[in-house]
Amino acid sequence: MANSKYEYVKAFEQPDVLLPNTWVVVRIDGRGFTKMCTKYAFEKPNDRRALDLMNAAAKAVMAELPDITIAYGISDEYSFVFHKSCTLFERRASKLVSTVVSTFTAFYVHSWATFFPETPLTAPLPSFDGRAVCYPSVQNLRDYMSWRQVDCHINNLYNTTFWALIQLGGMDNRAAEQLLAGTVSGDKNEILFSKFHINYNNEPEIYKKGSSIFRDYELVEPGTHNAQQEADASTEPPQQSKTQAEKEKKRRGKAAIVVHHLDIIKDEFWDRRPWLLTNKPGTVPKEI
Amino acid sequence: MANSKYEYVKAFEQPDVLLPNTWVVVRIDGRGFTKMCTKYAFEKPNDRRALDLMNAAAKAVMAELPDITIAYGISDEYSFVFHKSCTLFERRASKLVSTVVSTFTAFYVHSWATFFPETPLTAPLPSFDGRAVCYPSVQNLRDYMSWRQVDCHINNLYNTTFWALIQLGGMDNRAAEQLLAGTVSGDKNEILFSKFHINYNNEPEIYKKGSSIFRDYELVEPGTHNAQQEADASTEPPQQSKTQAEKEKKRRGKAAIVVHHLDIIKDEFWDRRPWLLTNKPGTVPKEI
Amino acid sequence: MANSKYEYVKAFEQPDVLLPNTWVVVRIDGRGFTKMCTKYAFEKPNDRRALDLMNAAAKAVMAELPDITIAYGISDEYSFVFHKSCTLFERRASKLVSTVVSTFTAFYVHSWATFFPETPLTAPLPSFDGRAVCYPSVQNLRDYMSWRQVDCHINNLYNTTFWALIQLGGMDNRAAEQLLAGTVSGDKNEILFSKFHINYNNEPEIYKKGSSIFRDYELVEPGTHNAQQEADASTEPPQQSKTQAEKEKKRRGKAAIVVHHLDIIKDEFWDRRPWLLTNKPGTVPKEI
Amino acid sequence: MANSKYEYVKAFEQPDVLLPNTWVVVRIDGRGFTKMCTKYAFEKPNDRRALDLMNAAAKAVMAELPDITIAYGISDEYSFVFHKSCTLFERRASKLVSTVVSTFTAFYVHSWATFFPETPLTAPLPSFDGRAVCYPSVQNLRDYMSWRQVDCHINNLYNTTFWALIQLGGMDNRAAEQLLAGTVSGDKNEILFSKFHINYNNEPEIYKKGSSIFRDYELVEPGTHNAQQEADASTEPPQQSKTQAEKEKKRRGKAAIVVHHLDIIKDEFWDRRPWLLTNKPGTVPKEI
Repeated sequence: MANSKYEYVKAFEQPDVLLPNTWVVVRIDGRGFTKMCTKYAFEKPNDRRALDLMNAAAKAVMAELPDITIAYGISDEYSFVFHKSCTLFERRASKLVSTVVSTFTAFYVHSWATFFPETPLTAPLPSFDGRAVCYPSVQNLRDYMSWRQVDCHINNLYNTTFWALIQLGGMDNRAAEQLLAGTVSGDKNEILFSKFHINYNNEPEIYKKGSSIFRDYELVEPGTHNAQQEADASTEPPQQSKTQAEKEKKRRGKAAIVVHHLDIIKDEFWDRRPWLLTNKPGTVPKEI
Repeated sequence: MANSKYEYVKAFEQPDVLLPNTWVVVRIDGRGFTKMCTKYAFEKPNDRRALDLMNAAAKAVMAELPDITIAYGISDEYSFVFHKSCTLFERRASKLVSTVVSTFTAFYVHSWATFFPETPLTAPLPSFDGRAVCYPSVQNLRDYMSWRQVDCHINNLYNTTFWALIQLGGMDNRAAEQLLAGTVSGDKNEILFSKFHINYNNEPEIYKKGSSIFRDYELVEPGTHNAQQEADASTEPPQQSKTQAEKEKKRRGKAAIVVHHLDIIKDEFWDRRPWLLTNKPGTVPKEI
Repeated sequence: MANSKYEYVKAFEQPDVLLPNTWVVVRIDGRGFTKMCTKYAFEKPNDRRALDLMNAAAKAVMAELPDITIAYGISDEYSFVFHKSCTLFERRASKLVSTVVSTFTAFYVHSWATFFPETPLTAPLPSFDGRAVCYPSVQNLRDYMSWRQVDCHINNLYNTTFWALIQLGGMDNRAAEQLLAGTVSGDKNEILFSKFHINYNNEPEIYKKGSSIFRDYELVEPGTHNAQQEADASTEPPQQSKTQAEKEKKRRGKAAIVVHHLDIIKDEFWDRRPWLLTNKPGTVPKEI
Repeated sequence: MANSKYEYVKAFEQPDVLLPNTWVVVRIDGRGFTKMCTKYAFEKPNDRRALDLMNAAAKAVMAELPDITIAYGISDEYSFVFHKSCTLFERRASKLVSTVVSTFTAFYVHSWATFFPETPLTAPLPSFDGRAVCYPSVQNLRDYMSWRQVDCHINNLYNTTFWALIQLGGMDNRAAEQLLAGTVSGDKNEILFSKFHINYNNEPEIYKKGSSIFRDYELVEPGTHNAQQEADASTEPPQQSKTQAEKEKKRRGKAAIVVHHLDIIKDEFWDRRPWLLTNKPGTVPKEI
């Protein structure tokens, strides 16, 4: 039985190749996590186990997809950055997005019991949606990352104050909401400190800064590289020998995938880790 | 701290809304399932537990996304059909694809232990990729479904014969491959029957026909409806009252989601289940 | 000198193929025609020469692109309909749009002197922009056409009354605008009749109905064809022999391209001209 | 009569906004110009009048669309470059392409009589198709421009030799083709010189280099600007005051639009004209 009669339907598949030489960010978001927080009694304002589970799933995604150079996560969202020279899946958007989302979901569900050993999952299960966005220049990419980290800060400061008012101050949700309406950062810092003796600066970095995941090489001296300029100037496709590619792959394989809670807005973060922008693996740190 | 400085990066998100009034098929495929078959020792040519797991995950997807009217699965792939009037997620492709893929993956991983109680999952975990395709007419949609079912048949007949030659006939892979090269359906039926006394027609329907999942209502008499014509003629958006929509939602909620292994190429399947094309829920069968 | 070093830039061209088996409408609009009306002193509310020029250019487009089955024009816009089975330029949107726009512009500029012999063109010259839209079903396509014709009616009734108030009633623009604010069709008909003894129904059809252009074959008896259903049911690609295609091409070549000012909202227009939907050329009328 | 019943058809228009912060190249190509060359007896290998007409039309396009920073033309094609910060028509592809194509066609047809006073145009009229391509970095853009100029060189050297063999050497087309098959640049230079005493280097620049069109400001000293780096580093949208924008617009208006036949592959061209990449108008040269 030949299938040729029906095969014309393949022609309806439309290409969705992402523009070459642009940074691809795949961002995933938890679906209906407000409900899930209640269902599984996540701690407020931050549940450390839930964040650690997100980070574990994100690390697993990075291990399976070496084309990802850096990932950044806050709350129930994670952004995965593919280097602008990446040609994985011929840069097809749906393939990139669905693979990241599926791999992340698989590890999230599978690792759940490790982080919530006493709370088994029941339907509806946690799930995530995703999308891919292209950024043409390093500055655009860094502004995207900064946008997410500023969001992390704004939300965390608000939530920390909000839940302090409720948990420590005995307010109800509505009263706390009204008190905070129209306040700026300074006001919230002041409330935390004067009412609850909480110095926001001493809050855990993971809550204030979110989590960055990347391959770890030796830090370089600032000013010795201009990774941003080098990255912007490079064209597509990379003119690289096979031997060179193999060598870099090997080095990448040796590098540890680490989770940090750093300021990724300032230049220093990027200046000292040029491999994040150039995609050239650095020197793997010697174990001590 | 205002976030306005960086928010311009949101403008880089490009819309991916699927053409209205077209049937949306989200097809997902297992990633690297050839390796996974080996790793978890799936039975050949078909592993019933693996297919039942696929079907369980697909049923869960349909329960969570009532906009899906029918799903069809073979091997490690599943196609989910959204009715052409569907407006879920404003028909954004990445949102539809990632939600289906993530929900499917979550249930696949979570239900694994039920179907493979003695084989725990280890990294890399099973994952799936997906894509959305639009089909303008009922005929196009049915031709897509037929294409998949013919594929199921072609592959299953080949695999059944191939593994009979190896498992029962003692051949090695290469010899079996060479023997089958250039054969047509009749040849393979003949090999099965004359060498191994296997009548292919008696093979389990799930292997020969794949699995269709849909909401179950009372079958109608063929010839009493012209669902295909009704569906093609209807326009977008549906001119439906809220009460009507609520009523239909309720009926849908009452309907059982069933798995069958039927011929979905012939008209009869569609003629007797007009709700699949019209999207109007039928009469829920009385329990006996 | 080899060009291979730079040829990688071709990979940045992104495909823009329109979904198969959908009706493609390319609509073009005059750019800055309000200014142009003033510059070339077009008569108000309708300039017959300007409309005849639009129609002449549209006829020329249809003669050069036989894949267009019908065109409909009002004011400074024209919609060209490509049959859903059309594969011209592999259905690339930019190619279809730019070819229609360029051909139309060429004939508009070239024929200007015929219709405005005493008003030579000067820079900035008249120009048009365009876009392509896909419609999956005949009903969608007809609703699009109806949308344009209703727009024609609404605008023409308004403009006829507005300019009567000014040209015959001696009002200024603002007073006329204020008088018409909030009026419905009946009010405008009444104003025309009671103040100026104008029966709107007797206005020229070209102003009230716009212009439809198509190939002319013998009208069929209503009820003898169901072109809409036939068109919706047909799939892509056409299963047509080469001889058949040649024959149809020849018949199309013989057919006159005619301009009419008919009601294209009612079924009758389409029922009596089944070739517009089926794309099968009818019988060329005998010359008398 | 309300139009709301049909207005739903507007929802089928799909957005086609080009990625922000990328260089947009709209390239147009003559349709069927091989036939047109014969029909209007264009001179071989180059018809100066035809090129001058192309350049006149391109200049007019640039005058009407100040967002274009540079245009480059060879034979019957022209590439128009919109600066990466351009927001004209919200960067909608079909609008940008159709406007360029239509404006170009209008001037081409309208100016025809100036350049071919003795050869009136007849149907089918000259027309052009077009497409838009995005380039993320200055290097990508320059490589695109280099690609076109290398193409110009390759084609012109071939055509010059080919037509010398025919017009001066008395060969027929086929013999000339066979003689040139497999030859490299050096061979063709040698044929021209040894057989026909033609030094290819002395051929007119317009044929060898094509035509670049841009706004003219005072050249800067090479090394004083790094326009490429500045352009790559800048983000979207431009943080520019209204006064500043007005001022720049005015300066642009004062600048002459000039046609040159220069090497645009080498750095010098771009280094001395930083405004082409930065989009900041330079100093208008004093008239002498």
